[in-house]
Amino acid sequence: MVTYPKFEDISSVACVGVGTIGGGWAAYFLSRGLSVRAWDPSPDAEAKLRRLIDAAWPALTALGLAENASRDNFTVHADLNEAVRGVGFVQESAPENLELKQDLLARIAEAVSPEVVIGSSTSGYGMTEMAQKAEDPSRLVVGHPFNPPYLIPLVEVVGGLQTDPQATSWASGWYEFIGKSVITMDREVPGFIANRLQEALWREALHMVDNGEATVEQIDLAITDGPGLRWPLQGPMLTFHLAGGEGGMAHMLDHFGPSLKSPWTRLDAPELTATLRQDVIDGCDDEAAGRSFGELIAQRDAAIIAVRQVVETIRSPQGVQAK
Amino acid sequence: MVTYPKFEDISSVACVGVGTIGGGWAAYFLSRGLSVRAWDPSPDAEAKLRRLIDAAWPALTALGLAENASRDNFTVHADLNEAVRGVGFVQESAPENLELKQDLLARIAEAVSPEVVIGSSTSGYGMTEMAQKAEDPSRLVVGHPFNPPYLIPLVEVVGGLQTDPQATSWASGWYEFIGKSVITMDREVPGFIANRLQEALWREALHMVDNGEATVEQIDLAITDGPGLRWPLQGPMLTFHLAGGEGGMAHMLDHFGPSLKSPWTRLDAPELTATLRQDVIDGCDDEAAGRSFGELIAQRDAAIIAVRQVVETIRSPQGVQAK
Repeated sequence: MVTYPKFEDISSVACVGVGTIGGGWAAYFLSRGLSVRAWDPSPDAEAKLRRLIDAAWPALTALGLAENASRDNFTVHADLNEAVRGVGFVQESAPENLELKQDLLARIAEAVSPEVVIGSSTSGYGMTEMAQKAEDPSRLVVGHPFNPPYLIPLVEVVGGLQTDPQATSWASGWYEFIGKSVITMDREVPGFIANRLQEALWREALHMVDNGEATVEQIDLAITDGPGLRWPLQGPMLTFHLAGGEGGMAHMLDHFGPSLKSPWTRLDAPELTATLRQDVIDGCDDEAAGRSFGELIAQRDAAIIAVRQVVETIRSPQGVQAK
Repeated sequence: MVTYPKFEDISSVACVGVGTIGGGWAAYFLSRGLSVRAWDPSPDAEAKLRRLIDAAWPALTALGLAENASRDNFTVHADLNEAVRGVGFVQESAPENLELKQDLLARIAEAVSPEVVIGSSTSGYGMTEMAQKAEDPSRLVVGHPFNPPYLIPLVEVVGGLQTDPQATSWASGWYEFIGKSVITMDREVPGFIANRLQEALWREALHMVDNGEATVEQIDLAITDGPGLRWPLQGPMLTFHLAGGEGGMAHMLDHFGPSLKSPWTRLDAPELTATLRQDVIDGCDDEAAGRSFGELIAQRDAAIIAVRQVVETIRSPQGVQAK
């Protein structure tokens, strides 16, 4: 049985592939005080990575650097085996090409010590199919970030059928240890969670443009000046919990349940069974975590006001300019 | 031909129905320095409205009141005809019941002067069906707000088949005049725009809960700590424009277009025809309005940092408490 490393013992990590996503990960790891060993087949990898880190550094500084963080604490290696040597964790961020990822993950798994976990930034493939060429797929885990990975906290973690469940929970713990918001999924679902939600909205938007029902600008305005203002603090479920008034999600489902039959999107809704109804209500109660209706409303309103003020400052001609 | 009132000549408006939405509208109108005449069949309408206005007032004060704004500048009337007497605009926010709205809108249209426009807060019905009982449906327009109407700027405006197009554009101008973000739709679409997008995401979320693919809390975390952080400043379309890197939406569509065939949501995507592709690309270019890739990225990053800081303050135990 493998003993995975203690999080606090890890001082260096490898980034395999340093495009927008991999480079963003590298910047994030550096900001946490880690040293980064990078590999990328592109001939100007080092210059590109340097630019990505420099671009991300002001944001990372604003959010707070670890004490020993340095933007220069990285090396770029021509040889993959050399890049992953001695590291405590590997983040793979190669282009979204199944065969390429299969080969690369097999090579990485072979090159690192048997207690090193390898996270893949894939936004769509499941680890079961990506791990197919690896001799030992037990430490291969999806760790799906959001662009830009140095600013968006979310990481979705899910193992494949051959992944050691201990490696999956180690990966979740590790991402949390370095300050990420982690969702650990029990099983592989195409698109994971955030991309499924985002993709449903995106496809509905494409249909609307396709049918002349809305323009691109109207779609964006509908979100930025509408529900998008509520979502950074309270997600869509808790938002609807509040829409139900004092009666919460139960009232909301009983009152607006019939609208699930309305043609308000091209996506058919599931049957609102008693079980589904109860699951959604219980989930909202868990999330409210004892906060009263009044407290949730006060937090929502405070967030909307502050977010509107932030956005207005940035939109104004006197607002933030590009460096 | 009707001459609609000048916006600056309007000093009083009527709110028909003062539940959560209508009461929120009343608070908003008061904050703009208008006087409000309210009608609601509920016996404790006045006390309820007073509570709603008092609850909204701190937020409205934080966002900035008009010079002559007063939270006491309202009257509640037992008689509908009396409530709408002499006002320059009527906002109807009755419960979401078609027959009830048809009757009420017919009565309002008959009671007001022929140059007064009537906006309906309906979140789902089209004005063509809601106006069926009105003798003169020409000034009946949908003006769909988002909860809470005193904080979320979005109002979706769309007329019915019998609405005077001048009344529709007057309504859009009026909502803009009082500080709202307005989307004027060319034709009736069930769910308008924002609710279609929101509903697609909500239905996908319900399917995921129904199938045990995600919990309520995971769904909310996926949005609040993921794409939801990007959407208050840049909507889903402009977000993907940036995901395309320097190549923008064109590169994004060519690169990720095939993922429209992936089972990343239960909603089938439209065919990515050359026309659709071009419409989306052109829309993003219009929206970027000359801002460079670097400028857009800098604005996005500044917004995400500031929004994260806002949210963290509110979430922390020292953060905002309910009043």
